[in-house]
Amino acid sequence: MLPTITAFAASPDRGRGLARDMTVRWALEEAGQPYDVRLVSFSEMKEPPHLAIQPFGQIPTYQIGGLALFESGAIVLHIAAHHAGLLPADADARARAITWMFAAVSTVEPVIVQREATVFMEREKPWFAERMPLVEGRIRLRLKELDAWIGGSDWLDGAFSAGDLLMVQVLRRLGGSELLGEHSSLCAYVARAEARPAFKRAFASQFAVFAAQQASASA
Amino acid sequence: MLPTITAFAASPDRGRGLARDMTVRWALEEAGQPYDVRLVSFSEMKEPPHLAIQPFGQIPTYQIGGLALFESGAIVLHIAAHHAGLLPADADARARAITWMFAAVSTVEPVIVQREATVFMEREKPWFAERMPLVEGRIRLRLKELDAWIGGSDWLDGAFSAGDLLMVQVLRRLGGSELLGEHSSLCAYVARAEARPAFKRAFASQFAVFAAQQASASA
Repeated sequence: MLPTITAFAASPDRGRGLARDMTVRWALEEAGQPYDVRLVSFSEMKEPPHLAIQPFGQIPTYQIGGLALFESGAIVLHIAAHHAGLLPADADARARAITWMFAAVSTVEPVIVQREATVFMEREKPWFAERMPLVEGRIRLRLKELDAWIGGSDWLDGAFSAGDLLMVQVLRRLGGSELLGEHSSLCAYVARAEARPAFKRAFASQFAVFAAQQASASA
Repeated sequence: MLPTITAFAASPDRGRGLARDMTVRWALEEAGQPYDVRLVSFSEMKEPPHLAIQPFGQIPTYQIGGLALFESGAIVLHIAAHHAGLLPADADARARAITWMFAAVSTVEPVIVQREATVFMEREKPWFAERMPLVEGRIRLRLKELDAWIGGSDWLDGAFSAGDLLMVQVLRRLGGSELLGEHSSLCAYVARAEARPAFKRAFASQFAVFAAQQASASA
């Protein structure tokens, strides 16, 4: 029995793999676990059948047997608990890697998502130009702290872990912006992760959804 | 050997227990685990010794033996993995409770913290009055979804768990605001949690720090 995840039927990022299904696909690839994908539309996400497994009307979800999970961090942790390759065997190292999983989604991601929300909802507002530096200042602070921590290391704490996987996916949302470009060590960190075979397989799978949707739209 | 956590030497919320050390104190009380507390000043938090265990210069941290953790979500999960009382024994129920832990700190908390940041950093800006409804609208959406999920249940998923503990701490940051008051089921949910003996013990411990600081300041 394969797990089934949900993903956007219509990629809002044109196949760049920034949606959170990419995070789960990548974890499944690192774990060597095949999976099925169920695509959902934006309207389906807000309807009762989906809300019964994802109360906030988002993707991804993860279902296997009678179990349904949501929150990409929790799904990755569940996969890591059932397969090798995502968390260290040593108990202390494992606890530290889980600390980085939480740091990614609860300390670093919120300031980055806030920038996206600002661009989306306030671009036409008269205060946009003056407010954006405040929003970006909060991102700059986090990136500076993260850069100071990583220094010359390859990964956040010893070997690659689920903590790196979540952190890299969060940083990838900054795309080619100058915010990330100001930190060569963080750019190298993201590039190092994107070079992993599991990342590439996951990226190709999510891109195939976008490509098929484009082909169908132009047919 | 007792674990040692860090907390603010000077409570920024005047003893209301909204800082994240309260979250960890509460988890330790639910687990029946005694602990030591090391108080840190705002300047100490930004200095190298603290940054070596908390790269983002925040509290709380959790140290036991040679292990140092940060991120209240990760610390609570670590405590839950080593003591009964915070996560169900059944594997699927446990995975769902962990999902709610991530939902609390990565889906609900960010929109609430964003409101605090807006009040703190933009109160004097000319756009404040017009922008605040946008910020609160994002909170209202999350509270509505959470209310729809909880309905008439006591807790998020079966028995009280670490997922409820983190979610309640996040909702408590809204304090007496009308945002929470619009949802009687969520107010009852928070009150139910605050009535737990472990919550009360943790609250008293953090309040004692504030009271001692006040006494010392007025001496």
